[in-house]
Amino acid sequence: MTRKIDIFDTTLRDGEQSPGASMNTEEKLVIAREMLRLNVDVIEAGFPISSPGDFESVRKISELVGYDAVVCALTRAIEKDIVVAADALQFAKRPRIHTGIGVSESHMRDKLRLTPDQTVERAVEAVTCAKKYVDDVQFYAEDAGRSDYAFLARIIQAVVDAGATVVNIPDTTGYSLPEEFGRRIKHLVDNVNGIEGVTIAVHCHNDLGMATALAMAGVANGARQIECTINGLGERAGNTAMEEVVMAIKMHEAELDAHTDINTREFVKASRLVSSITGMNVQANKAIVGANAFAHSSGIHQDGVLKKRDTYEIIDPADVGAGASQIVLTARSGHAALKHRLEELGYEFEPEKLDELYEAFLNLADKKKEVYDEDLESLVNERDREADALYTLEGVQISCGFPLTPTATLTVRNPEGQSITVCDWGTGPVDAVYKAVNQVIGTENDLMEYSVQSVTRGIDALGEVTVRVKAASGEIYTGRGADGDIIVSSTKAYLNALNRLISDRR
Amino acid sequence: MTRKIDIFDTTLRDGEQSPGASMNTEEKLVIAREMLRLNVDVIEAGFPISSPGDFESVRKISELVGYDAVVCALTRAIEKDIVVAADALQFAKRPRIHTGIGVSESHMRDKLRLTPDQTVERAVEAVTCAKKYVDDVQFYAEDAGRSDYAFLARIIQAVVDAGATVVNIPDTTGYSLPEEFGRRIKHLVDNVNGIEGVTIAVHCHNDLGMATALAMAGVANGARQIECTINGLGERAGNTAMEEVVMAIKMHEAELDAHTDINTREFVKASRLVSSITGMNVQANKAIVGANAFAHSSGIHQDGVLKKRDTYEIIDPADVGAGASQIVLTARSGHAALKHRLEELGYEFEPEKLDELYEAFLNLADKKKEVYDEDLESLVNERDREADALYTLEGVQISCGFPLTPTATLTVRNPEGQSITVCDWGTGPVDAVYKAVNQVIGTENDLMEYSVQSVTRGIDALGEVTVRVKAASGEIYTGRGADGDIIVSSTKAYLNALNRLISDRR
Repeated sequence: MTRKIDIFDTTLRDGEQSPGASMNTEEKLVIAREMLRLNVDVIEAGFPISSPGDFESVRKISELVGYDAVVCALTRAIEKDIVVAADALQFAKRPRIHTGIGVSESHMRDKLRLTPDQTVERAVEAVTCAKKYVDDVQFYAEDAGRSDYAFLARIIQAVVDAGATVVNIPDTTGYSLPEEFGRRIKHLVDNVNGIEGVTIAVHCHNDLGMATALAMAGVANGARQIECTINGLGERAGNTAMEEVVMAIKMHEAELDAHTDINTREFVKASRLVSSITGMNVQANKAIVGANAFAHSSGIHQDGVLKKRDTYEIIDPADVGAGASQIVLTARSGHAALKHRLEELGYEFEPEKLDELYEAFLNLADKKKEVYDEDLESLVNERDREADALYTLEGVQISCGFPLTPTATLTVRNPEGQSITVCDWGTGPVDAVYKAVNQVIGTENDLMEYSVQSVTRGIDALGEVTVRVKAASGEIYTGRGADGDIIVSSTKAYLNALNRLISDRR
Repeated sequence: MTRKIDIFDTTLRDGEQSPGASMNTEEKLVIAREMLRLNVDVIEAGFPISSPGDFESVRKISELVGYDAVVCALTRAIEKDIVVAADALQFAKRPRIHTGIGVSESHMRDKLRLTPDQTVERAVEAVTCAKKYVDDVQFYAEDAGRSDYAFLARIIQAVVDAGATVVNIPDTTGYSLPEEFGRRIKHLVDNVNGIEGVTIAVHCHNDLGMATALAMAGVANGARQIECTINGLGERAGNTAMEEVVMAIKMHEAELDAHTDINTREFVKASRLVSSITGMNVQANKAIVGANAFAHSSGIHQDGVLKKRDTYEIIDPADVGAGASQIVLTARSGHAALKHRLEELGYEFEPEKLDELYEAFLNLADKKKEVYDEDLESLVNERDREADALYTLEGVQISCGFPLTPTATLTVRNPEGQSITVCDWGTGPVDAVYKAVNQVIGTENDLMEYSVQSVTRGIDALGEVTVRVKAASGEIYTGRGADGDIIVSSTKAYLNALNRLISDRR
């Protein structure tokens, strides 16, 4: 039997730190359910001290997960952080506190303003404090990728002696070369007493496009836990992508003496789910889960693949859930069929919410011949978003084209319950309707990004629109909207973003 | 002085093999001009035998490039391929023929149906044949990543003896681990006589998300040329991304004893240009050129970066052209200002084409306050696409919204010069107008992908729509359209794709 490598998913923590990818608790629970289907070992559920929403998410995810995975909460090396994390984890069956501190010269001197001795002291205090609440304590040595080898070994020795069960070696800035990062892990294996009794974890960033290779170098040199996210989401250029690193281990199990317990057939579905919830699209040439990952266009390649698949393809698409058969729902599908399918997709609802959803489903099925999983996901996410709206769309009417002047007439219900109707014109129909929205909700903002994804196949696709707006304060808010009519989706997405902006300000 | 690593760009060859990314000759010339600004060493301009369009592109790019870079043309190890490639390269000042054959057991047995001895013989014949036409001959050992070490050394020895100047070791299926791939390169350095007199190249694929790390392992072990593409375009999950590998070398110059001569400040512009022309979007968490590559959202990171940038950021965004200041044109900008800016962006036009473009520019500048580079790029690409249209849009009129039934009235001029007006309704305005287009052009097709990119900032952005349709024959065609009105862009994009499909069929 080869070494078991633990998969530590941080989509809900580092992934959520992607600018514009913030999620609410409901959305996080949907992703946590998908993580259980993937069979991850550890779910990093959030950073409880950072906001009441994060606290609540960690608490709810703890209840959901039960014994099926370790639930982990992040803290700085600060007592208050640790106390709040322990509180958020109180219902977890297998809780873990993840505490740590910067260990590179740059982090100690310029950010923390601590000497190396003070840093070691703070690290040991944090681990000791966390051990009062939970047995399973993971320590992160932030910016370890740029740290001094001897100092890194010293601080890891100190936290292992203090009782850390997992030591996480992050390449926080995505600076390292894989070979060098591997040597760094090897140095710890060779120089820390008692290291065989703890798990070495790696947490790598993708700033130079090598996050997956860095994690693989860690595994080859003794790491037994990989921190990663679906689609490689995360700060800046993101983290190690779970789908990549798991498939790379699977392809090289014997060489690496390593395997994971991940259910790889969930990857494409998990990718789509995370992309839909965060609004972060996946490029076509993304490894494993991109639209082209298994597409061959040159004649030479097509010829080869037809003769024998493995001449140009190393992974069977079915192994990652690509092109898997789908149950298709139609207008003749009943309530139970919808409920069953939604459960398979990881959604569970109260009966009255399900009734609402069934109405919306029938409406859509009347317009479309077949309703696919992606349509259902759009519908569900749409309903979630409507729930807490301050301003709601009552109607919008567009006339546009070429040569015409795009004009929008909009009716919105404000938080006081009044219907307001305005009209405006613009360079295009979206511009016209956004100007009309601005007339009703006079809040200053910059539209940073506007994107549309046809989440389904065929010409009658349900279009999902994502917008990212920047408030005057500099904060970025994401809004999404789904409708068969792209202009209606656009209107809903913009209202959704502004609703979030306004409710945050209150 | 550290070792100079040659950058061999294959955006126009392997990049164009991305499903749906095909380009016409005009578009390839625009990209070739950008390659000269990037200062690449070699441009792989195409695969001349594969189509008259590819032949023409290689020929035109040869004329454009002059002495500024090597122009390379791909062939199989077949005499006819080589003769045609030599012909396409006849005007190149620094021509290179790139020939080769599969060297793994899988490729020899299942695809080529040759014995190892026959494969070596074919390789030597191909190199010898190419040497009759050009001095600079590059040999590729296809699927070298899965080949036998001893056989790979044997065939490389044979082609070096036959006069190959560059030997390219591709990991065609993206299967290797970086460390193992590095050992493979080292094995050649140690075992091929005369290898010091030729350049070892690496060509890596991203199927496991490690294309950049594989190329870096090659460089660390003796490779002196990297084959790569902008945005990592290429077959399946793509190739090594030029922007990633060049920045990784730059960050580790001393350790690797290596540098490149690339003008890194062009990266963001090159990325946007390639994305706009191919219709292949770049995800936000893409290293170096993604929208989030330099964005920080967590409080801890923001705090660190404000104290000192390099606590969380290893690359200065200005070094890759991110956030560079832009010249903004307005309705008061003259003909000369437009011409100057277009030239800076890599576009050159005949006077009458420029006059047309200036009209379109003024039209846009009247609607928008400021016209950015991205708007100009959209405009130019739009004009290019209109040139060879079989069916052209004369007018479209839309009424839609909620609760309304989306309806489109469309007027199109057919290749015979007749105006045809039809109307239709659908689930949304795009669906309605696409159904109307189908009424006029009754060609069977599947809409595979529909995407919109707001290529510019601000609410009055010019929206560019990309569609990918699959013909009944299985071929995929990309269409793009740009207009201030998203529905007009959508209509143009669909017409553009169908025009390509029809003209291909003729």
